[in-house]
Amino acid sequence: MNYIQTFEAMVAHLSAGGCRRRIAVTCGYDESTLQAVGRALAGGFAHVLFVGDAERVRNHAALTPFAEHIEYIIPESDEPAAAAAAAVRLVREGKADILMKGLISTDVLLRAVLNKEAGLLPPGSVLTHLAVAQVPGRGKLLFFTDSAVIPYPTPEQRAAQVGYAIRMCRAFGLEEPRVALIHCSEHVSEKFPHTLTYAELARRAQAGEWGRAIVDGPLDVRTSIDPVALRTKGIDSPIEGCADVLVFPDIEAGNTFYKTVTYLTGSDVAGVLCGTTCPVILPSRGDSAADKYYSLAFAAVGCSAE
Amino acid sequence: MNYIQTFEAMVAHLSAGGCRRRIAVTCGYDESTLQAVGRALAGGFAHVLFVGDAERVRNHAALTPFAEHIEYIIPESDEPAAAAAAAVRLVREGKADILMKGLISTDVLLRAVLNKEAGLLPPGSVLTHLAVAQVPGRGKLLFFTDSAVIPYPTPEQRAAQVGYAIRMCRAFGLEEPRVALIHCSEHVSEKFPHTLTYAELARRAQAGEWGRAIVDGPLDVRTSIDPVALRTKGIDSPIEGCADVLVFPDIEAGNTFYKTVTYLTGSDVAGVLCGTTCPVILPSRGDSAADKYYSLAFAAVGCSAE
Repeated sequence: MNYIQTFEAMVAHLSAGGCRRRIAVTCGYDESTLQAVGRALAGGFAHVLFVGDAERVRNHAALTPFAEHIEYIIPESDEPAAAAAAAVRLVREGKADILMKGLISTDVLLRAVLNKEAGLLPPGSVLTHLAVAQVPGRGKLLFFTDSAVIPYPTPEQRAAQVGYAIRMCRAFGLEEPRVALIHCSEHVSEKFPHTLTYAELARRAQAGEWGRAIVDGPLDVRTSIDPVALRTKGIDSPIEGCADVLVFPDIEAGNTFYKTVTYLTGSDVAGVLCGTTCPVILPSRGDSAADKYYSLAFAAVGCSAE
Repeated sequence: MNYIQTFEAMVAHLSAGGCRRRIAVTCGYDESTLQAVGRALAGGFAHVLFVGDAERVRNHAALTPFAEHIEYIIPESDEPAAAAAAAVRLVREGKADILMKGLISTDVLLRAVLNKEAGLLPPGSVLTHLAVAQVPGRGKLLFFTDSAVIPYPTPEQRAAQVGYAIRMCRAFGLEEPRVALIHCSEHVSEKFPHTLTYAELARRAQAGEWGRAIVDGPLDVRTSIDPVALRTKGIDSPIEGCADVLVFPDIEAGNTFYKTVTYLTGSDVAGVLCGTTCPVILPSRGDSAADKYYSLAFAAVGCSAE
C-alpha cells in the first residue's frame, strides 16, 4: 500500500478499499455525530449499527440516502447503560468492528467497555489514547499518545503505547515509523525519572520488539520534528527531526500538545482508544463533525493494524 | 500607561519611555546576541555593558553606531567563570539592571547567579522562568510559566510563579490579569494532585494576595484561551476563556507548550528568569536574534514590575 500522509489520502484509501467497517454508534443523536456518520457512509467505508432510539435519527437527511447500510439496534431499556451494554455486546459477538460514543456520558460508556466480564478490555491489556494530527504546512501526519487516558504511564504502559502507535503507523503504510519519546531535556538524568525508562525503550526497539521501527529519546517536541533545531542543538538522534509519533511523558504534556495543536495551529485531529478488542471513538464535548468523521476514518484504518 | 498587546507595542513603549536599561551581556560574541543587542541599542532602551573580550566585538557593525551607550568590562581572567562573576558583580553593585547570557555555557553563568554569597538569588526566593508569546492571529500576548527551570513545582513555588506573572502583567498595563492554572481536567480530584493545590491558589487570589487579579483552574489550554470551547464544555470560570497567563503543572507540559507554539504556530516568544534580583536572559541554543531581542525588551519591561 502507499504511505498515507494526509487525512484526504486516509479517506481515499478507505473508499478505494471498498471495505465497510461496522460501526456501533451508541446514542448517536447529536448533529455532529450524525453528520460524521453520514460522511463515513457516503465515503463507502462505514456500515452503521445505530444503538438507541431509532425514531430520533431514522429520517435524518444525513442518513436517508444510505438506508441499505444502516441497521437499528434497540436496547433492552431506555437507560443509557442499556444502550452502552448493547453496543459492547455487538462487538463481543463479532457483529461490530468499531465502537463510537454519541450523546451518552463518557463514564457510562466506559463502564460498559471496561466491565470485567462483559467488556472489551482483555486481561492485561493497556487502555490508552492514540491521536493523529494533520498540521497545516507539514508534509506528513503526526501521531501522538496519550493526551486523554493514562495520567502517569508506568514503563510497561509506555511500552504498550509505543507498540500501539507503531502498529497504527504500519496500517498507514509507514515501513519504519520514527517514535520520539518526549521530554523537556534531551539528557538522560536521574533528576528526570522518565528519561531513565526511555533509554530502556530505545534498547527494546533496537532488539526488534516492535519490528522495523526507530524509537529514540528523550527529545523535546521541537527537536523531534524540526531537523534544523536538532542540528542547531548538536543532538545526534536516529529520528533526525522527522518523528512520526510523539510519546508524551504524561497526560499533562500530552493534553497540552493536543489542545495547543487543535486551537492555535488549526490542525485537524483524530483519536481512538487502543487496547480494547476494537477501536473505540470517544469524542470530547465540542468536537466538530469533522473531528468525529476523521476519528471514524482513523478507527477504520486502525481495524487493519495487526 | 496603555495596555501592551503586541511585541511591537512593547518595543514602542520602551522607546517612548526614553529609559535605557543597563544590560550586562556576558561573553556576547555570537552573531545573534550582537544583532539583538544592536536592535535594543537602536530602539533606545539599552545601555550595554559588554563583559568579556572587548576586542572580539568592538568593531562589529551592529554596535559601532552606538559607541556612547556601550562600555566594555574586562574580567579578571579569560575563564568563562570570571566573566560570569564579573557580570553578576555589576548587578550586585547596582551598575546593571539586566543580566544576559551570550556565548558561555548556561551552567557556568547559572553557577554565578546562584552563588550563595555572591549571587543574585535572595534567600527564600524562587527561581523560575516566565515567557510571553505573540501568537499569530491572537489579539493579545500570552504569558506562560514555567517551561524551563522548575521540574515539578511545589505549591509554594507555584504561588511564586503566579505572583511573578501577575507583576509582569501589570508592567504590561493589565489592570486585572487573568491567570489560568493548567490541567488536563477541569475537575478538582484526588486522582490529580495538582488540582487540589489549584483551588487553594484561587482562594488566595480572591483574598487579595496578588491585588486585583483573577486566578482560576484547573482549566486546559484550550478552555483557558477559547471562550467558545469554554461555553461548549459548560464550564463556569471567571477567566471566561480569555487568559493572559497559563501556569503549567510541570516542566513537561510547559516545555511542550513552548516548543509547540514556537515551531508549529510560528509565534514569537520572549523569556526571562524571575526570582533573581534582576531579570536574567538565558537564551537557548538556536534562539534567533529576534528571540533574543524580544527577550531583552521583555526583561526591560520587567524592570518596571513592582
